This record gives sequence, C-alpha cells and structure tokens, in this order.
Amino acid sequence: MGVNDMNNPRVKVLGGGQLGRMLIQESSRYNQSISVLDPSPNAPAAHLAQPFVQGDFNDYETVLNFCQDADVVTIEIEHVNIEALKALEQQGKKVFPQTSVLEIIKDKGLQKQFYLDHHIPTSPFILCDGNLEEHVDFFPCMQKSRTGGYDGKGVYPIKSKEDLNNAFSGPCVLEKWVAFEKEIAVIVARNEQGQISVFPSVEMEFNEEANLVAFLFSPAQISKELEQRAESIAMDVAEKLGIVGLLAVEMFVTSNGEILVNEVAPRPHNSGHHTIECCYTSQYEQHLRAILNWPLGSTHLIQPAVMINLLGEKGCKGRAHYLGMEYALNIPGVYVHLYGKEQTSPFRKMGHITVLNESLERAKSIAQSLTERVKVVSVDNSN
Amino acid sequence: MGVNDMNNPRVKVLGGGQLGRMLIQESSRYNQSISVLDPSPNAPAAHLAQPFVQGDFNDYETVLNFCQDADVVTIEIEHVNIEALKALEQQGKKVFPQTSVLEIIKDKGLQKQFYLDHHIPTSPFILCDGNLEEHVDFFPCMQKSRTGGYDGKGVYPIKSKEDLNNAFSGPCVLEKWVAFEKEIAVIVARNEQGQISVFPSVEMEFNEEANLVAFLFSPAQISKELEQRAESIAMDVAEKLGIVGLLAVEMFVTSNGEILVNEVAPRPHNSGHHTIECCYTSQYEQHLRAILNWPLGSTHLIQPAVMINLLGEKGCKGRAHYLGMEYALNIPGVYVHLYGKEQTSPFRKMGHITVLNESLERAKSIAQSLTERVKVVSVDNSN
Repeated sequence: MGVNDMNNPRVKVLGGGQLGRMLIQESSRYNQSISVLDPSPNAPAAHLAQPFVQGDFNDYETVLNFCQDADVVTIEIEHVNIEALKALEQQGKKVFPQTSVLEIIKDKGLQKQFYLDHHIPTSPFILCDGNLEEHVDFFPCMQKSRTGGYDGKGVYPIKSKEDLNNAFSGPCVLEKWVAFEKEIAVIVARNEQGQISVFPSVEMEFNEEANLVAFLFSPAQISKELEQRAESIAMDVAEKLGIVGLLAVEMFVTSNGEILVNEVAPRPHNSGHHTIECCYTSQYEQHLRAILNWPLGSTHLIQPAVMINLLGEKGCKGRAHYLGMEYALNIPGVYVHLYGKEQTSPFRKMGHITVLNESLERAKSIAQSLTERVKVVSVDNSN
Repeated sequence: MGVNDMNNPRVKVLGGGQLGRMLIQESSRYNQSISVLDPSPNAPAAHLAQPFVQGDFNDYETVLNFCQDADVVTIEIEHVNIEALKALEQQGKKVFPQTSVLEIIKDKGLQKQFYLDHHIPTSPFILCDGNLEEHVDFFPCMQKSRTGGYDGKGVYPIKSKEDLNNAFSGPCVLEKWVAFEKEIAVIVARNEQGQISVFPSVEMEFNEEANLVAFLFSPAQISKELEQRAESIAMDVAEKLGIVGLLAVEMFVTSNGEILVNEVAPRPHNSGHHTIECCYTSQYEQHLRAILNWPLGSTHLIQPAVMINLLGEKGCKGRAHYLGMEYALNIPGVYVHLYGKEQTSPFRKMGHITVLNESLERAKSIAQSLTERVKVVSVDNSN
C-alpha cells in the first residue's frame, strides 16, 4: 500500500455520519474510494460512499462481513462492535485506531485511569458503581456515564446533594469540578511508522443548553507557552496510547495556568471541521494519511477561522429548511457545509459554517452575525 | 430554486471528465447532487455523479431524455448536441451557458467575428474555406479548425509556405501570428440576474510539444494597469455574450502592452483548477452559484499558487502508476488531484497539482521540483 501506487487501497469505515461524509469528501481528490457501514440508508455519508453498505456496526457478524476485503478498517464513531474489530486484528487486518486504544477511550473510567497511570495531567476522579451518596465530600463534580455518552449525553453536573435526584444511575465516573478559564482542543495525528503531527490549538465556546460547541476559534487565544504545553500534552497522550490515526484531545485551561486533559476522541472531531479550509491539510485528509501510512501533511494555519455548528432550531422537528443562506453566501470567506440530513430536530447537528478571515476578530463578528441569521427550521415552521 | 431552500435543484451536466468531477466535488458540501451524462462508464465523474447516466452527449434523443427532469442543464465540454439543448430551451428549461453563446464559441470563426463586431481586441484573422495558398500574404499565422478542436488539437502554426504540406484541410480560421510576451487568462462568472465577478488573472506557460499548459501562475506577474485592463476586457466579453455561468478568457499580452483575446471557453477551465485551494470560492463552486442564480462568491486570493498538469509520460500507455507521490505529499501546501483515469497515454491529463505558498517564487521552485519527480507512467514502464 505504497503512496506511489495510489492504487486505491480498500478503506472501510464503521459509521456514516457527517465525520464519515467529510472523510470521503476530503479523500476524493486522491481518487480514494471509501466504503461505509451504517444502519441508516439516509446517513450523511451514504450517497458518497463507494460502496455504501446498510447494516449495524454494533453487530459482530455484520462488521466482520463488511470488513472481510478491507485493506484498512477505521471508524467515525466509537460505539461499534469491538469484538469484531479484535477478530479482524487477529486475522492480521489493519484496524486504526487499534482496539486496544478504543477499549480505553470508550470507557471514561478506564480513560481517566490511563491518564493517572501515565502521568497525564487530568482532574481528580472517582470510579463509582452508582452509589453517589457516599461521595458527597467530592461534590461539586461532573457525573459521566462510563460508556455510551456523546455530544453532551451521559453527562450531568452535580453541584450539591440537591442535584442527586436528577443524577443517573449505573457505573459512572465522578470528575472533580474544574473552574476552567478556557476549553481548548488539539488534534494529533500519528501514522504507523510513528510520525506525529499536531494541528494548531483551538478554543471552544459551548452552547450550555445543548452542551455542544457553539463557537470554535482557531487559533486559541492563549499564550505561546500554554500553546506549546497543550501541544506537547496532546502528543504525549497519542504516543502513550500508541494510536494510529487521529486523536482529538480536549483540555481545560485553569485560572492558574494549569492544563488538564478532559477527554479524547480517537477519530476526526467536531473541533477540527475548520481545518478543511484553514489548514494546508484537513483533519480528514490527515486521518487518511495516518491510517494509510502516508507522510503526514502540513498543519500550517493559512488564515484564522471561526467555526459554528448549524444546530436544528429549538421547537422545530421535520423536513429541514435553511434560513439566511443568501446572507451567508454573500460574505467573503464563509464556507457552508450541509450534512444532507433531511430531517431536523432540536440541537441536531445539521451542518457547520467556517469563517476565514485575516483577522480572527473580524471572523468572530461575522460568525456572530451568522448565528443570528442562519437557522435550520422545519418546513412547517419556516414562515 | 431559492438559495434558502438548498432543496437540491436537479442539476444535469453533459460530460463527465475531470471538470465535471471537480464540479461535483466542489458542490458536495452544499449537499448538491449532480447528474452526469457521458459515454464512458469509467469517466472521471462517473462514480461521483448522482446519478451517472451512460450515453452519448452528441445524440439528440439521449440528451433530451437525460435532461427531461432537470432544473438546470449545464456542460463541461462544448462538443455536445446543441439542437437538443435548443429544444430544451424552447421547453422553458434553464440551459447555462445558453445555446446562443455555445453556437458562437463552438465555431472559432464565429467567435473571432463576434470579437470584431463587438470591438473586443483580438488579432486579425481570415475565415478560409480550405484554400490556404491564396493567403500567403497573411503568413505567419495560426491555422485553427473552426469546430472540434481542443487541448491543442485542430491547431497548426503556418510560418511560411513550406508548412502548407502539413496543414489540415477543411474550413478554418487563420489568425495572424501574435508575438506575445505572456499568455494570461481571466475567468469571469455571471449569474442570471447579471451579477458579475472575475478571478485574479493567471499566467500560463505551455508545454510546446503537447500544446498544453505546463505551469500556471496565480496571480499573473503583470502590472496593476494591465491586470485591470485584462479583467475589464474579460467582463466585457461575458456581458456582450450575455453568458450565464463561467467564461474563461485566454489573452495574449504583447510586447507593446496590448491585450488581445485569444479564445474563450464557456465552462470551468484548466486555468482555474488552482482556485479550489487558493481563492475563497473555487471556479467550480462559482459556476454552480452562477447557474443556480445564487450570489456569486468572493474570488479573493488567499495565497499565491502554481498549478501543474499531471500529464501521461511520453512513451507510456496502459494502467497508470504514479511516481514521486511520497515526495509531493511531504511538501507543505502541495495538493495532489488525481482524476481517477485508470489508463494513461502520452500527454493525457491524468491529474494536476496545486502548490500554495506565501511567496509565488517559492511556489514556482517547488512546482519545478515536482515536475522533475512526479510522473505518470504505465505499470509496465514503472521500473
């Protein structure tokens, strides 16, 4: 599978959401066809996959069959059948990220334990079997489901005993509350021969109601020293995990200048969408390069950028209709990405917009104006 | 077909070559599906089209049937059945570029006459029915076939009477030889409501043997005054033609500072490939915006660029094999585009590479090194 052949190695992806969709879009100029497995025939990546296979990526046999003729297997969502991937690894197939990495990351308890064992700075935590009452001394904290959580689901803030009524049951991690100043992320890529590369750090502002990224700024507005420290922590995590592929490392910057790893994702990530336009190499292309053991690309930042998620409007459910597009298309450096989801619902990720500008401040004010005008509503609610 | 709907108007393209392929790639983030008609099931755009229809775009019935349910019909090659497009226009369908424009441009004689009639600067010419002998006073000149020529085919330089033996027969245009200093091109876009926009001018260096663009530099190294004049001439041609869509205007800059229109193409063009990476809006996206009557995008140049065509190596015919890819992928700002053509042959356009750099001079030297190392050979000739 030498890069000089460009002979279209068979890449199979578990999951056909927007991350898979953009992976395919960004691989297209290499004439790299990518096959996708997803239960929904209307998945964002379905029409672009070559070929698309409808099926459950949580089903052992389905995953095994789908990957039989793969040269490389990868994922765009962690919640897949790991046993099947293990069997494929045992057959000698390349599975990136490796199942050893997936097993640690999928379980937020094991993930925290990994940081502790490997001297990676992270907030204090307790692994809890469900009896929260006995940990009142540890409040305020964040309760996180050990497995299955994503996009703010499976996360609950416990500030005091009063919050216990709404906490969820079952095995969880309690993470000590961090009074952070900023949330940042660094995406790292590592290929099979161990070459490693980081994207410039980004800064995130969350929509508290949806617990999803509302604004993302690139580069993060932090000191050079903090930036270098964040990059070196992110590379350290990737190397200690030994991951092949992308690793998005989310971190807190505290008021006293500490950097604490919050959590990681072993795949392309929402915090890297903007790299499609603002870096020489996008996170999606970098993931492809990493898993195919090609040389990693330059992550040079061409222009500062702000990214906003296009979330389904509150109170709107049904066939999607986009408001404000004419406004957006008229602004220089504005890139609209629609994920091809026919149905919208409140806070559903329907697309994103990246704003490029020579000035990050101007990009921010353009992004602000876009959030006020561009809306994803349902056809019935569009008047 | 309002831009706010983004409700996937049905766009039908005659031709599935690399221009159609890149049109699809660049439309993908708008979730815009594009259908393609091409006789070859292995055409570069075939696997990306939604759907692909195999058929002859020169056949009246085939074109008519293919376009029956179109919202907009466009082309990526001029050599299509114009009678069918006329019939579609008469049915009230939107056909962009319009057949009135296509008829003028397809015939290089009518094209020259159009420039003359509309006071657009161009070199002197003679329409000739095939008897070249009677025009010896007009030599040196360029003999161009009135129809059917492209990519240097149907073009023959006649310097003196001795060259007549190799000249071709049939109706042709004789264009007075222009002692030009530079060849430049400006791509214009015009939408249905008449909004017009130009891309920064580019400069071309030709491979004389293949008569194809070897290097393309953006921006052209010409004075501000010349640049403005070139842009205004290009816009003038587009407006006088009344074209909707893209128009690539190739021009000569003579040693005494004259600008003469050489010829035009009513579609995305080889001289605009680099816009994918180096302008806020690519020529392909701009074509889509123009034909859908969306607002035209900003053509702001983000960074200077050099584009090189990846041509099939001389003496190599067969299954394509790419040399030097690892070298290319290691250089920051280098974008490799492969068109997915399985078979290579001498001078066949197999792909292109765009080099972005803050300095045009550095981009040029990187491009030079790439031409020495990146080759498209056939599998049998790869050792």
